[in-house]
Amino acid sequence: MSHRDLHLDFNEAFAPQQPAGISEPELEAATPNFIQVHRALQAMHEIGQVQFLHLPYLDEVLDNVERRAEELRGSFDNMVVLGIGGSGLGAKAVEEAIFGPIFAGGVPLPVKRLYVLDTLDPDYLSRLFDGLDLERSIFNVVSKSGNTVETMAQFMYLYDLLKKRLGPERFRRHLIMTTDPQKGALRQIAREENFECFDILPGVGGRFSVLSPVGLLPAAFLGVSIRELAEGAIRMIKRCKGEDIWTNPAAMLAMVTTLLAERRGRKNLVVFNYSERLNRCAEWFRQLWAESLGKRYDLEGKEVWAGITPIQASGPRDQHSQMQLYAEGPRDKMVMLWSQEKFDADLKIPKLYPEIESLSYLGGKTFAEVLHAEMVATEQSLKESGVPSFKLMCYDADAYTLGQLFYLFEIATVHVGGLLGVNPYDQPGVELGKKYIYGKLGRTGSEEFGATLARKLKDKRYVV
Amino acid sequence: MSHRDLHLDFNEAFAPQQPAGISEPELEAATPNFIQVHRALQAMHEIGQVQFLHLPYLDEVLDNVERRAEELRGSFDNMVVLGIGGSGLGAKAVEEAIFGPIFAGGVPLPVKRLYVLDTLDPDYLSRLFDGLDLERSIFNVVSKSGNTVETMAQFMYLYDLLKKRLGPERFRRHLIMTTDPQKGALRQIAREENFECFDILPGVGGRFSVLSPVGLLPAAFLGVSIRELAEGAIRMIKRCKGEDIWTNPAAMLAMVTTLLAERRGRKNLVVFNYSERLNRCAEWFRQLWAESLGKRYDLEGKEVWAGITPIQASGPRDQHSQMQLYAEGPRDKMVMLWSQEKFDADLKIPKLYPEIESLSYLGGKTFAEVLHAEMVATEQSLKESGVPSFKLMCYDADAYTLGQLFYLFEIATVHVGGLLGVNPYDQPGVELGKKYIYGKLGRTGSEEFGATLARKLKDKRYVV
Repeated sequence: MSHRDLHLDFNEAFAPQQPAGISEPELEAATPNFIQVHRALQAMHEIGQVQFLHLPYLDEVLDNVERRAEELRGSFDNMVVLGIGGSGLGAKAVEEAIFGPIFAGGVPLPVKRLYVLDTLDPDYLSRLFDGLDLERSIFNVVSKSGNTVETMAQFMYLYDLLKKRLGPERFRRHLIMTTDPQKGALRQIAREENFECFDILPGVGGRFSVLSPVGLLPAAFLGVSIRELAEGAIRMIKRCKGEDIWTNPAAMLAMVTTLLAERRGRKNLVVFNYSERLNRCAEWFRQLWAESLGKRYDLEGKEVWAGITPIQASGPRDQHSQMQLYAEGPRDKMVMLWSQEKFDADLKIPKLYPEIESLSYLGGKTFAEVLHAEMVATEQSLKESGVPSFKLMCYDADAYTLGQLFYLFEIATVHVGGLLGVNPYDQPGVELGKKYIYGKLGRTGSEEFGATLARKLKDKRYVV
Repeated sequence: MSHRDLHLDFNEAFAPQQPAGISEPELEAATPNFIQVHRALQAMHEIGQVQFLHLPYLDEVLDNVERRAEELRGSFDNMVVLGIGGSGLGAKAVEEAIFGPIFAGGVPLPVKRLYVLDTLDPDYLSRLFDGLDLERSIFNVVSKSGNTVETMAQFMYLYDLLKKRLGPERFRRHLIMTTDPQKGALRQIAREENFECFDILPGVGGRFSVLSPVGLLPAAFLGVSIRELAEGAIRMIKRCKGEDIWTNPAAMLAMVTTLLAERRGRKNLVVFNYSERLNRCAEWFRQLWAESLGKRYDLEGKEVWAGITPIQASGPRDQHSQMQLYAEGPRDKMVMLWSQEKFDADLKIPKLYPEIESLSYLGGKTFAEVLHAEMVATEQSLKESGVPSFKLMCYDADAYTLGQLFYLFEIATVHVGGLLGVNPYDQPGVELGKKYIYGKLGRTGSEEFGATLARKLKDKRYVV
């Protein structure tokens, strides 16, 4: 164990300390189920499946990304990722954790900057495109399937814009792609028009792709050590190999959340994050967890409507917003607190107003101390309100920590999938939406979906 | 009705169109309950209570804020709000809606800028304080009680910092306060040291204070028309006066959400927002709704654990993150879609790649069209997945729209409180947390809470 290891503290999730928590005998009784899930995962890993577990070991990919990122840093100041969902969330998470929140106006900016275009909002995009120095920007089109609607719409727009502004040949140096090595429109375009292209291995789903070029290239472009990301991931993979749940962080996380959800009706998992730098990691987690586990059918085809709904909150902000509800509202929540121990800076509160009792106790404290006190107070309030909680403790928000965090949650998510009996790698529930988008926009082959939308009745009485 | 009116569309929330929805006879049967709640609210309003309903009519306050904001705009470029929860969320919501997302680096910034310090994170704050041009910044300390821990810690730090950097007399011009007219440490300091101070009326709670100086002063400083905000609010107050629920937007919103939560087990309310500019309005809504309605006891003292948990999502981003769970996960959600009709800019996708079937249908469409198609597709997917939904339709994201939006939700929240039988104005569940913060930080009088924390046992077996 090193002080840089991530830890999880489940003291407030267990009975009798937390009467609404699970009991040790319950956990022990469910362990054989976990061991079965765990062995299946390890066995698949050993025969080369479960590709995401191999990513941090792919030295050749890491070398190649590092080398190319270094070259790109020589030519560009901005990387603009055209990517949505798993294609953008990992890069955003790394950026905010390593560089902290980026302020507009006046406040010094990091040397290199990342923009992730996970929107179609025309006001947002037109303002960005108008203001960006295109000469100093590299556009990275990221889509596993190579036909993601939002990403391809942005790509087509920018292809034209860059060509006009930078010239018919020169613009090609400003576009790179990250997609499936064989399939999809994006790969076809890259091949035909000779764009540089990075691979997303076919066995790696978007939400498990942060340590593939999807997340690595933007990270390396920003100057983040992707070796440290990989080392953190490998450290966590090793810690999650054993069958003893008491020493396996992913196992404990999976077991505790599954039991609280299934046996105690705690179907909502609040991530109450006390580190500003980790807010986008919470957003990344939210996708991983929701899309992997929210499944109507289990592996045997039984209708189960499975899943645990992730809810993002940040401290101390949401003590003044959501805490009242968490403490006194519906008894359907468990809370995962996130804390960060080490800060780059700290600020000390001066000893002002010694005569005002409601202020004087603050004098001499640091902001980190006050922040820590608030998290401890939240934990204790939840305890007394009968809300089971547990804590993710990060030493830092650096690359090594992030590597651990990503892999802790990826492995735990697969475990929960196993415990719930669902497939954590697919997303059948979003296919229908795509068909309706195609139908509405008139794509060939989706006419019937367009027709269904056109036939819909609107009762004006229901509009107010 | 004007095209600038907000509208709500409940077509997908009612059976038989949505089998999981509520039925018209159910709604009609519950109407007498609503009328009772509504009459109580109107009666209290008429005798001068329910102060938030009076705010948009207070011309003298509006005049004063406008005049002072104009003067401050002459001297400063940045307003830094020291405020958390209701003291900051309204201002943030207005800023992002009116000015759109503010990008770091390269992209032109609005003339005036707002920073809301609703955090204690030392990395975040030290970076901001280091980078900010203090000469051009006005600091607005906002706390109704005048002793909010986070805000007062920031205030004490900045008091000292500004004094050192700007000189012992000159620094006073850079600090203003917004607090209770009589009570609290902040008012005392303002009085003794002669700081300029704006009033939060005692009858206006933080989460209902956006049209008091709490939200108005930052808005006016940014150049937003606070008259239009007030006009929007007044328009909505008028539309919500009648007893006919079919023409009263707040009534319909309150009735439909309450019935879906109480009768159909839809205790989670997802705000699925398809306007980037309204994302922080969703954050503002989330506080209003959660803190007002999450209550352990009803007005008669019965334990009810009431509340409807708000969950924020944004489209199209979360189609690639949360939609799978909403469609196929636990049957405990209803969805409120938010749409914006008019954008300042629009971008047209060029007709590239006519030979690639998976791209060609996008050519010639605008981003706004694609975005709209995605929202329609999400609505239809939810429908077919058996998830009741309804839609908030905004024409624009301007001040008049925001005024309507704030008051629609404030009035509806009070109505839901009445329907659930809870007090929407208090927040008893956060008091305990404050005591533990004081205890942990050694404030006089809170020693026992500090002792409780110190006595807590940590079983190392539960830490992994």
